[in-house]
Amino acid sequence: MTIELKPEERLDDLQRNGFKIIQNPGKFCFGMDAVLLSGFAKVKQGEKVLDLGTGTGIIPILLAGKTKAGHLTGLEIQEESADMARRSVLYNHLEDRVSIVEGDIKEAGQLFDLASFDVITSNPPYMTGNHGLTNPELPKAIARHEILCTLEDVIGTAEKLLKSGGKFFMVHRPFRLAEILVKLSQHHLEPKRMQLVYPYVDREPNMVLIEAVRGGNPRMTVEKPLIVYDEPGVYNKEIYDIYGY
Amino acid sequence: MTIELKPEERLDDLQRNGFKIIQNPGKFCFGMDAVLLSGFAKVKQGEKVLDLGTGTGIIPILLAGKTKAGHLTGLEIQEESADMARRSVLYNHLEDRVSIVEGDIKEAGQLFDLASFDVITSNPPYMTGNHGLTNPELPKAIARHEILCTLEDVIGTAEKLLKSGGKFFMVHRPFRLAEILVKLSQHHLEPKRMQLVYPYVDREPNMVLIEAVRGGNPRMTVEKPLIVYDEPGVYNKEIYDIYGY
Repeated sequence: MTIELKPEERLDDLQRNGFKIIQNPGKFCFGMDAVLLSGFAKVKQGEKVLDLGTGTGIIPILLAGKTKAGHLTGLEIQEESADMARRSVLYNHLEDRVSIVEGDIKEAGQLFDLASFDVITSNPPYMTGNHGLTNPELPKAIARHEILCTLEDVIGTAEKLLKSGGKFFMVHRPFRLAEILVKLSQHHLEPKRMQLVYPYVDREPNMVLIEAVRGGNPRMTVEKPLIVYDEPGVYNKEIYDIYGY
Repeated sequence: MTIELKPEERLDDLQRNGFKIIQNPGKFCFGMDAVLLSGFAKVKQGEKVLDLGTGTGIIPILLAGKTKAGHLTGLEIQEESADMARRSVLYNHLEDRVSIVEGDIKEAGQLFDLASFDVITSNPPYMTGNHGLTNPELPKAIARHEILCTLEDVIGTAEKLLKSGGKFFMVHRPFRLAEILVKLSQHHLEPKRMQLVYPYVDREPNMVLIEAVRGGNPRMTVEKPLIVYDEPGVYNKEIYDIYGY
């Protein structure tokens, strides 16, 4: 089977199980955040996984390669991204394990059975506001800004769709940490594990990885720092491990 | 003036302005947490400061040495600790700047004017539960466990006594981080700055330093990691700076 690339699209190697992913660099490409989330998330054999706002499907595809998850579903509102994700699933022969559903996170309660997932992941838009965007900028902006869904939407949906004891894994920006932990608690997703990602050992963190458990008890583990670079251009060993080089 | 030491008490050098502190090693001695909090807290010239659960007065005494705070008050419920704190204040000739008040955090709303402090600090008990303690263990246990006051009491009191825009600085354990951020938000103390203290660069953090602003906007800075040891027995340079060696 040949998977066709559309104009401006390219096929990037994921360094994992020989998997590749279709992306359009003019629109949106996955970042280190998605890769780190796929390393932070713990998925057990046979578990049913949903990724909210999957974009080009990077997280379900990486988790299909890294874990023994049962079925993985990626939910994406943008038609073009969902289409790229579907073709990447086919390219990697993952059609039996990974489904891409085009739809709105805010309506996910109607698209899926309530309390039906063991694991939900999300790399949601980080920024609030949209700063008067024009049309050609929209695909990137929708991935980065809370235009079509807010943090509240993502967390509220995770609450509805997770089984009791199910796990929610999210990557976000540290500047919103207080809001994140408050909203998770309000939605009975108890924060249980957190890791801050520092670009260098002497810099402020630019990402935070969080695990919350639906109905969990209030006590959390903050993990050792994840330092990205030992020196400019040289990743820390842990980053190489997560990327799978 | 001679300050008398009672049996079992000792006078420890604070490496700061020649200040010393009276402690009873059989009861409770201050730890690195109090010192790091005194380095993390920002106090401007002339500001009025309250330390909730001051113990032997370590935090107001260090802040008197490190900052240009106006008046500093330490509130302590245990008579023996308050007495040691008062004698340390006299020993260091700080009686014009530092007052020690014996009293209960839960009744602080009656002891002090509401919305009257620019800065409130606290190194509260970290642990919940008291595990059936016997009397001789009580002084240490009261400092470490939520026997006489809970996190809710400390944060609720800080809300009452801080001016609008006033700052609350606290050190605590990371395992309670979610609860801390939730309670701060509930009490209109917006978390604005946080630093995790990691004993080594490859270990889980064992302390978290937090700054919250009464009535602040919801956006926070997570600072670069504070790493305590470069190698066993060798403090990181920043720790030496905070200690003032």
